[in-house]
Amino acid sequence: MVVRTNPTACIIVIGNEVLSGRTQDVNIQFLARGLAERGIVLGEVRIIPDEREVIIATVNEMRGRFDHVFTTGGIGPTHDDITSESIAAAFGVPWEKHPEAWALLEARYPPGAFNPARQRMATLPRGAGLIDNPVSGAPGFTIGNVHVMAGVPRIMQAMFRWLAPRLAGGPPVVQQAVYARDLPEGRLAEGLGELQHTHAGVDLGSYPYERLGGKGVAVVAKGTDPAAVEAACAAVAALMQRLGADPQPGEPPR
Amino acid sequence: MVVRTNPTACIIVIGNEVLSGRTQDVNIQFLARGLAERGIVLGEVRIIPDEREVIIATVNEMRGRFDHVFTTGGIGPTHDDITSESIAAAFGVPWEKHPEAWALLEARYPPGAFNPARQRMATLPRGAGLIDNPVSGAPGFTIGNVHVMAGVPRIMQAMFRWLAPRLAGGPPVVQQAVYARDLPEGRLAEGLGELQHTHAGVDLGSYPYERLGGKGVAVVAKGTDPAAVEAACAAVAALMQRLGADPQPGEPPR
Repeated sequence: MVVRTNPTACIIVIGNEVLSGRTQDVNIQFLARGLAERGIVLGEVRIIPDEREVIIATVNEMRGRFDHVFTTGGIGPTHDDITSESIAAAFGVPWEKHPEAWALLEARYPPGAFNPARQRMATLPRGAGLIDNPVSGAPGFTIGNVHVMAGVPRIMQAMFRWLAPRLAGGPPVVQQAVYARDLPEGRLAEGLGELQHTHAGVDLGSYPYERLGGKGVAVVAKGTDPAAVEAACAAVAALMQRLGADPQPGEPPR
Repeated sequence: MVVRTNPTACIIVIGNEVLSGRTQDVNIQFLARGLAERGIVLGEVRIIPDEREVIIATVNEMRGRFDHVFTTGGIGPTHDDITSESIAAAFGVPWEKHPEAWALLEARYPPGAFNPARQRMATLPRGAGLIDNPVSGAPGFTIGNVHVMAGVPRIMQAMFRWLAPRLAGGPPVVQQAVYARDLPEGRLAEGLGELQHTHAGVDLGSYPYERLGGKGVAVVAKGTDPAAVEAACAAVAALMQRLGADPQPGEPPR
């Protein structure tokens, strides 16, 4: 609503290990925050299996709908790492030896150890530009508006840090929160709905919480105009006070 | 591949707070594990914004493609909780006072406190069956093959525990892991690819790890035939041994 003119993004997590419950994904939150800082609005996330046809269909749908598409996972050397060849198929380009990636990886291994499995990591869609991997060497890549990164969090984070300043962004999306202990969401709801109308340039989200330190409700204001975000937060705090609560700035303590 | 005859599921996380990076989702992993125990294969997850048209389109696409659809989030009393009315629209049924939910919630509040915002939580798609909420009262609901649950993890978990034994399941999907320290994935890859061919009834996934205790590679075997899963794991362990590594059962210690 408030950020429709900012560039948009989608994340595609390619990972049977997330769908099976083996792995708790932590890449989505990292990317979501990094994108918000660059003023890029994350519009959707999909977690899909390591299956060629699903990857092709998902990438082709999303690269048409969003300004940026980020994928994580499936670019290692094993038989279940099929992201790279699937993305070549999605773009309808050959999947072939990438001279720069090849030279980079060949130099990394002792003689004879750059085996066919590792050579797969230097086999990329034609036209791909490399994303630097300072952690383990095997690069990610960008083709069109699709950025293909590793699934291992430490490697993915390094890749995104390299990538972020190179992405077309927009005005940063700022967030400000206010919370009130022991205020039930159901008492706040009506007044908050009215405030969303009068502060239409800001997104107001309401989140009940329950922590060791007590329970209550947090309201998060989000937008690209810092003054409008601050004004909305002040109005929410005043509303909380009228309801007899004691509003505090920020998120409730953990 | 191995579990095509099991019922399938999809999760739709309805949550601006996840897309903005404010909240680390933990519901997906909980549901993924619970579904696997029931023999239900999680085929896809989508995280979408609290936007009516997006919710309607996503629910209608997914309920046609999967046996079960689970949604989390957006069923509270505030203006940004629009899941329930959007799902009524997706099914083309009225969104109306649900007598059972209404009676349940009205009894929960002191006289006068069951205000219009709280009454929204008792307003459901016509034909919905309730999902018990022992934590905070406001029920989830099932309509067709769509199960609508809260986003707050403790409430969502209680709802799923109530729901799970009522879901049509299949043979449980069992997983078994074996790992080897200091074995690079790139050395294991070729042999592992061959094992995937000879153990076609089992899914073999390869996951490099890096922990305080060291780094290496874990292989997870997954399938509905426990004996086949065990045999595949034994074959992977033997392969690791041939490569000079010392395979250990289970996941690498954290």
